[in-house]
Amino acid sequence: MKGKLLYEGKAKRVYQADGQPGKLVLAYKNDVTAFNGEKKDMLPGKADLNNAISSHIFHELNDRGIRTHFIEKVSATEQLVHASEIIPLEVVVRNIAAGSIAKRLGIQAGTPLTPSIIELFYKNDDLNDPLINDDHALFLSDVTQPELNDIKTQALEINRQLIKLFTDVGIELVDFKLEFGRLSDGSVVLSDEISPDTCRLWDIQTRENLDKDVFRNGTGNLLEVYEKLMTRLEEAR
Amino acid sequence: MKGKLLYEGKAKRVYQADGQPGKLVLAYKNDVTAFNGEKKDMLPGKADLNNAISSHIFHELNDRGIRTHFIEKVSATEQLVHASEIIPLEVVVRNIAAGSIAKRLGIQAGTPLTPSIIELFYKNDDLNDPLINDDHALFLSDVTQPELNDIKTQALEINRQLIKLFTDVGIELVDFKLEFGRLSDGSVVLSDEISPDTCRLWDIQTRENLDKDVFRNGTGNLLEVYEKLMTRLEEAR
Ligand SMILES: Nc1ncnc2c1ncn2[C@@H]1O[C@H](COP(=O)(O)OP(=O)(O)O)[C@@H](O)[C@H]1O
Ligand SMILES: Nc1ncnc2c1ncn2[C@@H]1O[C@H](COP(=O)(O)OP(=O)(O)O)[C@@H](O)[C@H]1O
Ligand SMILES: [Mg+2]
Ligand SMILES: [Mg+2]
Repeated sequence: MKGKLLYEGKAKRVYQADGQPGKLVLAYKNDVTAFNGEKKDMLPGKADLNNAISSHIFHELNDRGIRTHFIEKVSATEQLVHASEIIPLEVVVRNIAAGSIAKRLGIQAGTPLTPSIIELFYKNDDLNDPLINDDHALFLSDVTQPELNDIKTQALEINRQLIKLFTDVGIELVDFKLEFGRLSDGSVVLSDEISPDTCRLWDIQTRENLDKDVFRNGTGNLLEVYEKLMTRLEEAR
Repeated sequence: MKGKLLYEGKAKRVYQADGQPGKLVLAYKNDVTAFNGEKKDMLPGKADLNNAISSHIFHELNDRGIRTHFIEKVSATEQLVHASEIIPLEVVVRNIAAGSIAKRLGIQAGTPLTPSIIELFYKNDDLNDPLINDDHALFLSDVTQPELNDIKTQALEINRQLIKLFTDVGIELVDFKLEFGRLSDGSVVLSDEISPDTCRLWDIQTRENLDKDVFRNGTGNLLEVYEKLMTRLEEAR
């Protein structure tokens, strides 16, 4: 199934899909990192959970008419996706203030952000993924203004669909990070992953974190929390 | 001429204009500050220079069809302006990478930025004037999206006019900061100041700084440099 290793990131390895040009295998790792790699650990079982959760979410998004890179889950830790030329932006959608925005702009954590706020970060570990605006994105990458507009429209529609998906299982979608890439026909589609590594998720009743914040803040057992999340998502099917 | 003191900033005092409702007197101070007030000094004569230079530039912009708050220079250190409800944004236009953008985005200082880049900063000393995007501005202030679009269009036109003005006297306009405010009719006009405190200006021949960077970096005599700039601008008339 897997061909050549193309590159390795902090959370996944990316392989050519054997005999399937234009397709890739994303293999999740057990590594967990935070604060741009400053805090890290290795948690056997995390790869399976992230692969299961991200596959579940992308499958739902595909079903709900969002175009994504996702084709199918092919093993416990792997999924088959369309190769896309990743645009080096982290597209963050925020429904409730938490994390960096609260500190940066002096907004009390927990404050609802209505309408939702979209932020662009330049995907560059050396620069610590700085916040940028459209003008910066146009200068720093080959993204075009129509593509940026398209990305923001898609991000808001994905937000609407994800809110439905999580509300159904009693979870509040606080914020999340997306990556987009170009397919061979030039269209820009949702790529990468959507998992508790890349979302802030709060239990609607208890307000407890169901995401990587338990690792960032050292407030809980990441595997148990991700497991609980997966169970809740699957029960909703 | 001057009525009640309304407020005092780092560079200017703002007074009601006696018997002229809707008008203000901006009185320049001799203070110079940098790095959000961390570095400061008092330079007798600076108020006169900043008032002269900013009055000269606003006079030119008014003549070239830009709507501004500026009415007239009324004394060595004072000018009469239309009161405007300041929108709490610092609108920065950059033609060449220098200062914070070079560091933040890893762009070599001196790199031309074509097309010019507009940045918005939230005018809030406690938060250190953070970089923001349109969504943040809409959340943090009562500015509207049409006003933001108008502000950016005006900023680019002001940039075109300022480039002409400075190029005529052998000076490169590297970047500058603008503030906009609403007049009583709701229209948004250029307010505040345009001076070597708020611009980066490089001699086209020698590349030397003709702006507050000589104070920030301790590389020259601020009063001499501002004097030289004023002389060059006046010679062009
Ligand atoms: N469909 C895709 N095609 C090509 N690359 C992808 C696709 N989806 C995700 N990627 C990329 O896979 C790489 C590995 O992912 P990850 O380990 O999360 O990296 P990072 O350390 O940058 O977060 C990233 O560069 C990501 O952008
Ligand atoms: N036309 C105007 N009407 C009302 N306020 C103005 C006008 N032009 C400038 N101001 C405000 O005058 C104040 C004093 O200016 P300054 O000393 O430069 O302040 P700061 O310390 O915020 O830089 C600032 O809040 C500025 O926004
Ligand atoms: Mg990643
Ligand atoms: Mg000022």
